Amino acid sequence: MTPAEFRRHGRAVIDRIADYMEEVERYPVMSPSAPGAIRDMLPAHPPETGEEFDRILADVDRIVVPGLTHWQSPNFFAYFPANASGPSILGDLLSSGFGVQGMLWSTSPACTEVETHVMDWMVGMLGLPETWLSSGPGGGVIQDTASSSTLCALLAARERATGFKTNAEGLDGRLTAYCSTQAHSSVEKAVRIAGLGTKKLKHIDVDDTFAMRADDLSRRIDQDRAAGLEPVFACATVGTTSSNAMDPLREIGEVCRERGVWLHVDAAMSGTAALCPEFRHLQDGLEHADSYCVNPHKWMFTNFDCDCFFVADRSALIRTLSILPEYLKNQATESGAVIDYRDWHIPLGRRFRALKLWFVIRHYGVEGLRYHVRRHVELAQGFAGWVEEHEDFELAAPAPLNLVCFRHLGGDERNRAIMDRVNGSGEMFLTHTKLHGRVALRLSVGQTWTEEEHVRGAWEKIVKAAR
Amino acid sequence: MTPAEFRRHGRAVIDRIADYMEEVERYPVMSPSAPGAIRDMLPAHPPETGEEFDRILADVDRIVVPGLTHWQSPNFFAYFPANASGPSILGDLLSSGFGVQGMLWSTSPACTEVETHVMDWMVGMLGLPETWLSSGPGGGVIQDTASSSTLCALLAARERATGFKTNAEGLDGRLTAYCSTQAHSSVEKAVRIAGLGTKKLKHIDVDDTFAMRADDLSRRIDQDRAAGLEPVFACATVGTTSSNAMDPLREIGEVCRERGVWLHVDAAMSGTAALCPEFRHLQDGLEHADSYCVNPHKWMFTNFDCDCFFVADRSALIRTLSILPEYLKNQATESGAVIDYRDWHIPLGRRFRALKLWFVIRHYGVEGLRYHVRRHVELAQGFAGWVEEHEDFELAAPAPLNLVCFRHLGGDERNRAIMDRVNGSGEMFLTHTKLHGRVALRLSVGQTWTEEEHVRGAWEKIVKAAR
Repeated sequence: MTPAEFRRHGRAVIDRIADYMEEVERYPVMSPSAPGAIRDMLPAHPPETGEEFDRILADVDRIVVPGLTHWQSPNFFAYFPANASGPSILGDLLSSGFGVQGMLWSTSPACTEVETHVMDWMVGMLGLPETWLSSGPGGGVIQDTASSSTLCALLAARERATGFKTNAEGLDGRLTAYCSTQAHSSVEKAVRIAGLGTKKLKHIDVDDTFAMRADDLSRRIDQDRAAGLEPVFACATVGTTSSNAMDPLREIGEVCRERGVWLHVDAAMSGTAALCPEFRHLQDGLEHADSYCVNPHKWMFTNFDCDCFFVADRSALIRTLSILPEYLKNQATESGAVIDYRDWHIPLGRRFRALKLWFVIRHYGVEGLRYHVRRHVELAQGFAGWVEEHEDFELAAPAPLNLVCFRHLGGDERNRAIMDRVNGSGEMFLTHTKLHGRVALRLSVGQTWTEEEHVRGAWEKIVKAAR
Repeated sequence: MTPAEFRRHGRAVIDRIADYMEEVERYPVMSPSAPGAIRDMLPAHPPETGEEFDRILADVDRIVVPGLTHWQSPNFFAYFPANASGPSILGDLLSSGFGVQGMLWSTSPACTEVETHVMDWMVGMLGLPETWLSSGPGGGVIQDTASSSTLCALLAARERATGFKTNAEGLDGRLTAYCSTQAHSSVEKAVRIAGLGTKKLKHIDVDDTFAMRADDLSRRIDQDRAAGLEPVFACATVGTTSSNAMDPLREIGEVCRERGVWLHVDAAMSGTAALCPEFRHLQDGLEHADSYCVNPHKWMFTNFDCDCFFVADRSALIRTLSILPEYLKNQATESGAVIDYRDWHIPLGRRFRALKLWFVIRHYGVEGLRYHVRRHVELAQGFAGWVEEHEDFELAAPAPLNLVCFRHLGGDERNRAIMDRVNGSGEMFLTHTKLHGRVALRLSVGQTWTEEEHVRGAWEKIVKAAR
């Protein structure tokens, strides 16, 4: 494809996406596609000779779009937000178009330096501890997902606790980790991967708001240590996936600090709320954390993937993950004057992800981002109010921000039936969880185009389905 | 940004990339940027209010482009190819534009089914074992990088060897892994992460072509087992990063199969050569492999990131990585009729990466891809011939495909000086390695726009710099 052809076809793709933005509300939110239906439309073998681009693009409409679940629909209330925006998509496009590889500073200095700079911006924007700035002992890096950040945090914790010997010596079966019963499944996945074994992951009790009980954490850590185990890692959550519970960071942080346990804070979705000073109390105590992550690809208008991972002490992370083979040696690295982000995560290669985040921040401005976050919270709070006022429904958990967990009083089957009915209509999409052993419906507000009419419409459909 | 604004700004970005494609040859290949120079151009604080998109785009030209190392330049011969193409960039753009999240089949069926289908296509295109098709016991998934694939392979090996108990019980310090002295650093990184400890990673001797010696592998495995250790994993390479050495897969495979050791084959760069039947002898014996990866983001015209990871037995991989919390349960998953790719890798969330690969295969056609691969090999072989004919230079390793390792006979310092001279000119970019303890220069041919004139020009510059 020549540059001239790229110009022509590129315009067609841009137009197709603009059309999609305009039309997305009209699609069934959850794809009605049956298993195998999309594959049935694809030819068994790839073409021997090239096809016209127009034909490929037509197949996107014919085959792909009907098989999408429309996360960008204003009626998408499922799971978590994954909101995207024009500036993000175009920043990502430039990243693809330049085709750079940012594994080392020297393989594209701009890829590293824009990232470092934007991560420093994020520290200020979210009111994170200033020691996490690149000018301090800490620093930030963009990863793909919060799962990867949790794993990297656990690895650094494992190494720090063992004098950086486990990388060479392997595990000795004494290391333990902690998270609440409500923590994301990625903590368990990380504990498996890092070789501790899930039997060494202790699930700490939660209180009535589904927040981790710091007293139970301290008791379990002390008990394990007394039993000859080595507590190394705890993960607290700002906004759990299941119900948006807020773990008490200050109390947990003090427990961890006193005991030399690495504290990782997973604020994947709700961390974005800290753009607004009035929500920063939810992260009070963050200065005790050793690492932290927030995903702009969830609630900050930045398309997947973009997870911002910060550490309080970058040397522990780098010492854990750094390997320098001969074929990657270069003068800039040896000078010590640059950051090589390959030493900050699992993969070696890396995209220029900072470009899209830089575009988003500049396009919206910090005040613009705050406006949308506040609006989403306000819409969710309105929904929570309607739930509370209705005699057949109740809130299933506190709703501190943009996620509302609620249930019909008619029991689990009734709630599942409501969910299946509204999702099956194609007019909206929400998902469920279990809280205190009972089904709860989750309504997550945070898509770019979601307005009051959509949230109100969702409530009306739910009430109607319940009848 | 409204859809209408997106249409307008999107066209400007498309035009900017088309211009870049036309101009890229004119830029200094390796960025001349000094450490910190890019950050110095960026404001200390993010804007409070949003900025005009035109201004953001202008800053890309002013700040970002001068800080890029131009991997897409036809004069880029460093590291490995990272070739991109118009159809790939546009497929990736649609992935961003649709903003889907493919963690589960049900979160966007097309994201999963197109991926499964294209991965099946790859089996045929590359002559991989048919048991790796999704209709067999195996299967393929797109990951970010070969590093992540190696880690996933090691984890599945670890679990299979321990009756899938290590995930729960943790490591016991007896597991060992094997790779050649020339294997990629990601093997060592994976061994660290998975908790085996690098002391348990045995580096196997290589022969004069830098290929792993299967006899040394079998000896080391047997020796370790006799010593009470548990050999679980070996990584062989089709085309090492350092010198493009080809490990003898059939012999290694037989050693591993007889001893119940999981064999992972890393064909990240050179696997693409198998598009051409005449190069498939390099992967002879692949049917003995338990897992395999090839990176279309290196040599198959697909922009980063796109690593194709295959396993011979998908159940081992899924059993290793699967966790199903309540909030992700859904009817499709419970029916067992669908693939949920989140269980095939470390992250939970995932991009619709298959779209760009699908676009590339359809745009070029298999014959078109073969044409370009053959052309790159031919150009590299031509270069190798010039090296051999020149009295002051020699080949430093066999050059079976598109990477030529060579050196000036004047010693290490002379070679480093040649490299610094040609790279410093901005007219081309190559990198180095060490082979038999001596510096060798690496010329890697594989960028989309590289033609004979560029390779010839590179040789002339090298010869001139040597004088």
